[in-house]
Amino acid sequence: MAKVIDFQTDPSKYRHWRVEYDGPVANLYMDVDENGGLFDGYQLKLNSYDLGVDIELSDVVQRMRFEHPEVKVVVMRSGKDNVFCAGANIRMLGGAEHSHKVNFCKFTNETRNTYEAAEADSGQKYIAAVKGACAGGGYELALACNYIMLTNDSASSVALPEVPLLAVLPGTGGLTRVTDKRKVRRDLADVFCSVEEGVKGQRAVDWRLVDEIVPNSKFDEVVAERAREFASASGKADVEKGIELTPLSRSFAEDGSVSYSLVEVAIDRAGKCATITLKGPDCDVPADTDALVAQGAQGYMLRLARELDDAILHLRLNERDIGLVVFQTQGDPEAVLAQETLLLESRDHWLANEILMFWKRVLKRVDMTSRSLVALVEHGSCYAGVLAELLWAVDRSYMMLEEFEGDNRHMATVTLSDANFGLFPMSNGLSRLETRFLGAPEQVEALKDHVGEALEAEEAEKLGLVTYAYDDIDWEDEVRLFLEERASFSPDAMTGMEANLRFAGPETMETRIFGRLTAWQNWIFNRPNAVGPNGALQRYGTGQRGEYNMERV
Amino acid sequence: MAKVIDFQTDPSKYRHWRVEYDGPVANLYMDVDENGGLFDGYQLKLNSYDLGVDIELSDVVQRMRFEHPEVKVVVMRSGKDNVFCAGANIRMLGGAEHSHKVNFCKFTNETRNTYEAAEADSGQKYIAAVKGACAGGGYELALACNYIMLTNDSASSVALPEVPLLAVLPGTGGLTRVTDKRKVRRDLADVFCSVEEGVKGQRAVDWRLVDEIVPNSKFDEVVAERAREFASASGKADVEKGIELTPLSRSFAEDGSVSYSLVEVAIDRAGKCATITLKGPDCDVPADTDALVAQGAQGYMLRLARELDDAILHLRLNERDIGLVVFQTQGDPEAVLAQETLLLESRDHWLANEILMFWKRVLKRVDMTSRSLVALVEHGSCYAGVLAELLWAVDRSYMMLEEFEGDNRHMATVTLSDANFGLFPMSNGLSRLETRFLGAPEQVEALKDHVGEALEAEEAEKLGLVTYAYDDIDWEDEVRLFLEERASFSPDAMTGMEANLRFAGPETMETRIFGRLTAWQNWIFNRPNAVGPNGALQRYGTGQRGEYNMERV
Repeated sequence: MAKVIDFQTDPSKYRHWRVEYDGPVANLYMDVDENGGLFDGYQLKLNSYDLGVDIELSDVVQRMRFEHPEVKVVVMRSGKDNVFCAGANIRMLGGAEHSHKVNFCKFTNETRNTYEAAEADSGQKYIAAVKGACAGGGYELALACNYIMLTNDSASSVALPEVPLLAVLPGTGGLTRVTDKRKVRRDLADVFCSVEEGVKGQRAVDWRLVDEIVPNSKFDEVVAERAREFASASGKADVEKGIELTPLSRSFAEDGSVSYSLVEVAIDRAGKCATITLKGPDCDVPADTDALVAQGAQGYMLRLARELDDAILHLRLNERDIGLVVFQTQGDPEAVLAQETLLLESRDHWLANEILMFWKRVLKRVDMTSRSLVALVEHGSCYAGVLAELLWAVDRSYMMLEEFEGDNRHMATVTLSDANFGLFPMSNGLSRLETRFLGAPEQVEALKDHVGEALEAEEAEKLGLVTYAYDDIDWEDEVRLFLEERASFSPDAMTGMEANLRFAGPETMETRIFGRLTAWQNWIFNRPNAVGPNGALQRYGTGQRGEYNMERV
Repeated sequence: MAKVIDFQTDPSKYRHWRVEYDGPVANLYMDVDENGGLFDGYQLKLNSYDLGVDIELSDVVQRMRFEHPEVKVVVMRSGKDNVFCAGANIRMLGGAEHSHKVNFCKFTNETRNTYEAAEADSGQKYIAAVKGACAGGGYELALACNYIMLTNDSASSVALPEVPLLAVLPGTGGLTRVTDKRKVRRDLADVFCSVEEGVKGQRAVDWRLVDEIVPNSKFDEVVAERAREFASASGKADVEKGIELTPLSRSFAEDGSVSYSLVEVAIDRAGKCATITLKGPDCDVPADTDALVAQGAQGYMLRLARELDDAILHLRLNERDIGLVVFQTQGDPEAVLAQETLLLESRDHWLANEILMFWKRVLKRVDMTSRSLVALVEHGSCYAGVLAELLWAVDRSYMMLEEFEGDNRHMATVTLSDANFGLFPMSNGLSRLETRFLGAPEQVEALKDHVGEALEAEEAEKLGLVTYAYDDIDWEDEVRLFLEERASFSPDAMTGMEANLRFAGPETMETRIFGRLTAWQNWIFNRPNAVGPNGALQRYGTGQRGEYNMERV
């Protein structure tokens, strides 16, 4: 599976999803083309999915927010007759490398989280209208919707058959949402996750697995009625028209480097390192929200967010030997602040809100990236407000101290803004500064007095905003030593360490999905009982069950 | 490593620890006998430890509570000159099977949690007095103490060198306690976990890694002073004399079954199943707390707790092919309630409190056991109060409904008591009933109206206290089908599923250690970069670093 995976798509290219818009309600049909798999060797039967199907879904969800702000309710349903969705494609999973399986699950998890949070962030509520079998990843698709309706007939059920059938976990949030979102009683959850055929009818409601069952004959009617009700009850402001998410400007060089308009990704293959440079604004601040809408996808922050998001996904899936990502910025910090000021002051405007919420998601994508992350704060950089947030998303940071010989760029500074104090919570629900100073919450308060100040290295280090400040004499050696050291560590140990160190403080359903559930799933994805030649994943479809070593660990 | 591991020991057998008692202060010396390893093939140099060393520590901590209630401060220190503790023995880890590594870490984690909580539960505070190198599992020993003192000399440091040196995680709570207990700033934690040599002196205080540094020349003096201070400030009541934890009555049969005085463990090797039967009281309720003290270790609840604890540990480590544990009780429910009533009414008495807090730990040990757990509520059983708690510790439960032909035991009942509403929190901080009814908290309130009622099957099922109630016609088939089904599933998938389903609701440092950290550690313990022939664990001590596949997953 060495094919380059492209996360950019648009409706004209969709093979698996289609949307019918009906005012405030959008009907989103999953209708997977079984010959449209991302890789060879499997057919996507019964609305089963692979990463390609999920890339389209992610695109749908994103465009719903920006291109269709008039939509208040999205009804997720199947375009096929007898099946809602059979889950992740097993042949694909059986044939995929460990790293692909893990990254596939991470991306699908992020997509589920995104539409689950759409209601809270933007007032777009997702309903799952389930008719036919809804199993495994299919039920996980539904679980991430905030309301689940199930046809009450003998063929329609919800199920998580992974454990009995495949010897793996429902790892796309399934187990976590069953216990923590749906709050299914633990022994019933145990039963539910053990029965291949799942649960249907009234029992599905009684066990809290779905919100409502509807007679088959009235299903479409009641679903439409419920969608209208939710739309009327929605607090989302009426917006007539969205903006178009035009294609990204992007080019790949021979050596794997990628250039966007505001983001450069330089690959150092020998050093196992990618440097992502974010540029400061290349365009004027829009005068008001009308101008913001007129700029559309060409506006600075939105373009930057889209490009960075794509770059991170590209590195995760397509550059797996690159263990270290270095962040840099170059530009005018004042110009960055000017751009964000308009957004912050217009938060009640739909597009300003969407752009800020998207930046929140991109930062979370950075947090969740299993690579060592470091920020270099060089002269000429623009770590201000929204961009400064990267300094506390990374594992550590190095800042240039005082003047460097022959370097006439402006002095390295870090500038705090109001955006750093709660607008972009991590998945633990805290701001990055709150997480950073968990042991000294008074420090976060003290930092508020420095909002707007261009802090040079000595002060930024003293305030705990960067890890190290080095002058011209030490900088090069120290940074090089760090990069070399990091490249020498076991990538697995780094992944485990970072997953544990990055998310101190409270846990949420989200941290639990990425922490606990994902880690157990990764473990199982390494166990012969699942992935060995006689394991359940390999044997699926052969009529033989997996052959297990019965030792408990 | 097929040797049977015995978790019972006493001070006369210790090879690695010794205690000097000095009124309210106990000095606990770690002085590992390098030839005293539990298995052959390694020497326990530099105060490194294996499971045998930890079994002794666990025994010390337990006896401190029951035999030495006069102790208010325990000072953990090294009996060797230049090293506090070098951590888990690497040769032992390198040679151990995956399942042994995982169970070893689980037991050491439980022991750390136990002495960490001794302050809150019983007013016994643990201080780590660190002189010399304190690395890896050695620092994790210190992290679980609630106050860390470090000698300020060039040789003494604290370190977590697992990642750079061994390509595994500091998995005995290290990463979690660094972020969540010590609240070390995340980038500093990243640096700390990357430097083999660790951190010493003032920097260790500044980074929150230790609480205090003391000049080497004054170390013993200041440690003694601090211990006296903490003892004076302790809220623990003065108790002159404890009770003796006399040896358990225990015998092993040829087939692996184990008999204690109140606990029977029957092994069905073909069915991969163990049945643990807990008996109701075989002795009178002590008239008052003086009588409770006089009964000592022969009292019902304490004996039951000790025997069950030992049985669970035995099954975990020595019967790894037994994937399923069935709980049964037999006896008079009223007699159980009478025993617990004295304890509940005497909670301000030190011994009553210790017995209840020990039962809390035993129940947590059950929760954390990676086996499928089921309770059978048969006629003649005594699931009342403290014993009923088992019904919500297991994954599911089956109860006999109405009379069974030829069975003249008393009717199966479940009886709630005040003990079920908060006295025995799970590691998530909630009672088992609160966790069970997370989606219907009003149900927990409603259950309070039924305290003291002997609820028969129909009502117990209706109230959600058991999973299934079956009559004479269905009972045998249903139970058999469940046992067979469970025995057919992949044990790894069950372990992952149970770890995710058992702990809904809030997370705590404890759930995080057993959930997130442990799962990542288990994953890494399966990865060639750590455990493969050229992995870091195997190569440790050869002068060669591990050879890594650099792909990130």
